[in-house]
Amino acid sequence: MAAPVVSLTSTISFHGLKLLCHKKYQVLYRFQKEIVSVNQHSQASSSFRLLSKNPLVSHPDSDIVRFSAALSVEQVKKYLNPSFMSLVVVGSMAFDAIETPFGKSDKIIGGAATYIAYSASNFTKPIKQISVVGGDFPQSELDALTARGVQLEGVQIKKDEKSFFWSGRYHMDMNTRDTLETQLNVLENFSPVVPESYQDCEFLMLGNLVPAVQRSVIQQMKKRPKLIVMDTMNFWMEIALADLKDVLTMVDVLMVNDSEARELSHEYSLVKAANKILTMGPKYLIIKKGEHGALLFHDNHVFFAPALPLEDVFDPTGAGDTFAGGFIGHLAKTKDISFDNMKTAIIMGSAMASFCVEKFGTQRLIEITRKEIDERLGEFVELVNFDIDLV
Amino acid sequence: MAAPVVSLTSTISFHGLKLLCHKKYQVLYRFQKEIVSVNQHSQASSSFRLLSKNPLVSHPDSDIVRFSAALSVEQVKKYLNPSFMSLVVVGSMAFDAIETPFGKSDKIIGGAATYIAYSASNFTKPIKQISVVGGDFPQSELDALTARGVQLEGVQIKKDEKSFFWSGRYHMDMNTRDTLETQLNVLENFSPVVPESYQDCEFLMLGNLVPAVQRSVIQQMKKRPKLIVMDTMNFWMEIALADLKDVLTMVDVLMVNDSEARELSHEYSLVKAANKILTMGPKYLIIKKGEHGALLFHDNHVFFAPALPLEDVFDPTGAGDTFAGGFIGHLAKTKDISFDNMKTAIIMGSAMASFCVEKFGTQRLIEITRKEIDERLGEFVELVNFDIDLV
Repeated sequence: MAAPVVSLTSTISFHGLKLLCHKKYQVLYRFQKEIVSVNQHSQASSSFRLLSKNPLVSHPDSDIVRFSAALSVEQVKKYLNPSFMSLVVVGSMAFDAIETPFGKSDKIIGGAATYIAYSASNFTKPIKQISVVGGDFPQSELDALTARGVQLEGVQIKKDEKSFFWSGRYHMDMNTRDTLETQLNVLENFSPVVPESYQDCEFLMLGNLVPAVQRSVIQQMKKRPKLIVMDTMNFWMEIALADLKDVLTMVDVLMVNDSEARELSHEYSLVKAANKILTMGPKYLIIKKGEHGALLFHDNHVFFAPALPLEDVFDPTGAGDTFAGGFIGHLAKTKDISFDNMKTAIIMGSAMASFCVEKFGTQRLIEITRKEIDERLGEFVELVNFDIDLV
Repeated sequence: MAAPVVSLTSTISFHGLKLLCHKKYQVLYRFQKEIVSVNQHSQASSSFRLLSKNPLVSHPDSDIVRFSAALSVEQVKKYLNPSFMSLVVVGSMAFDAIETPFGKSDKIIGGAATYIAYSASNFTKPIKQISVVGGDFPQSELDALTARGVQLEGVQIKKDEKSFFWSGRYHMDMNTRDTLETQLNVLENFSPVVPESYQDCEFLMLGNLVPAVQRSVIQQMKKRPKLIVMDTMNFWMEIALADLKDVLTMVDVLMVNDSEARELSHEYSLVKAANKILTMGPKYLIIKKGEHGALLFHDNHVFFAPALPLEDVFDPTGAGDTFAGGFIGHLAKTKDISFDNMKTAIIMGSAMASFCVEKFGTQRLIEITRKEIDERLGEFVELVNFDIDLV
């Protein structure tokens, strides 16, 4: 096929998809790094921002970007078809009742997959959800997720059962909490089914859940996703360690908090803990430290992302899941799973988490605007940006 | 006087002082920021690196830097005379006995001013020490400090008394410790005397000590130093709060740890604590969080510096003082007290502290080389460096 020529500021139609190309420093910067990245644009579902050099685009000479002549329709489709960017999220969708030193919530919508989906939907669409709810889960909440680009074909609705319920109380430091009540309900015998329409997924986010359920989803994928990220918690280390260790051998990235990393590795030093966990399966390890930020380990490399210092942490429920959603959302959006891009993804996750804690439950995540996210990313840059000369 | 012309790579003699000028990106960068800075060079005590634009140097056109014609001998002397860069350090010089989960030390040399001086001597000389020791303090330790450029005219030696002694035990997390024994000894009635030769100091570092002693040093300075930095601890908040609050009104930068910031402000949120403390006198506040890094607050700005993730923290004694020494040492070296340069200074402090904890007491600080410091600064850059585009 002939290579279409696109002015950087023009909009073109291509196989039914509109391409909108912006001339920005951002674009030039991306070119230098040769990152292949087609991002869904905000305004219209069928318009895209093209940030790619190779193979889509040859060179940004003056104001013209040229598609590579060698590019096939299939290659273009691969990069432009939203289904190729799809993200599958597994996790609970639930009710929470939360007490903090600052207030007390009614029974509100929660669950790892809920937070992940709300967070990730700021970066990529569609999100293909796998979960289970009872007949008590409000249709309006499902509709709200659908409106955000979350597909629910993989969400089982058990009309005669009740949704998972968790109730907890946070202490003043917000890093520790007591579980007041847990009702497994629909989660007790949850057997996930991956719909056929989810099989093309490239990114799989295993939210915190029974390790055997996480494994079942991986095993149902006919083609291994490009990247599998797993969240888990100390509870599973205590009652399902063998399963958890088995899932560890199947994933690329593990996310745990600092005390969980210590528990899993039997090492107090987080560096030693990371070294040990990286021999258990995952090639990347993220250790979340709450208000103290997060560490990313890979081989001998380590990256640190701070948490934004906030005047008030109102409710930390879901902050870890929101972090995970920002992380996987950014990776799915950019389709770049390099260590460098994971750094950026962790900053995105940290920014999203900083919103989550400002109000009860998912409330703040639902209100959030693109402009607010950008402003907060700017605050992160300010927060850690320094000049250094050698001594 | 006529303006001397200096090639950027040449060495010239000027009023008995040798100037060595390097052409480096570093230099050009500094020029853009118009930072006036004359740094003592490493090799010879009488050679200097010239990083200044105004008033010393006019413009870096090609390979030539020209001194401003308007420059007087006195002005040049002011910038080139080491005494104008002098740093005064106040604090204890003492014996410590330390127990950690990894080992136990004999009675070893410690004290805030000792750690600060060792750390700062990597950045600037001379360091003018104010302290008090007993007849039991080894002459060899005093000689070792002198060899590092630490002047001891302000150190009182009370031959018939004993030096301050502290003994403590750290817990596994290394953030908490129990004091096993404290013998104030010479510190009990310490009345500091600022020698005449210290009066030209531009930077004053008040190490953790009785607030009244810190105040006495400030009051003895005939001309207020360009920058006064104060360290303190919860102990003084409990037994000498009025004095401490009085000293706060006299200083520019306060350093405390997170629990001390909370105690001083009666606020749990560190952001709220910072806002309150910044109304008590200091224009800058550094909150040290140990292994979780440090925060710098000023007006509505906040900067975060991580701690380097270490395999082993062997002994955290003196880490805070070492941090302070790197911080004030960098500022005294660069003579730039802007918020931006304080960010860099905090990274320098963090790098120095990361060495301190690797061995018992001051041992690691004494061995440290310039190359090791530069390598560690590189690790800090790697640790927090990320690329970000807006969403």
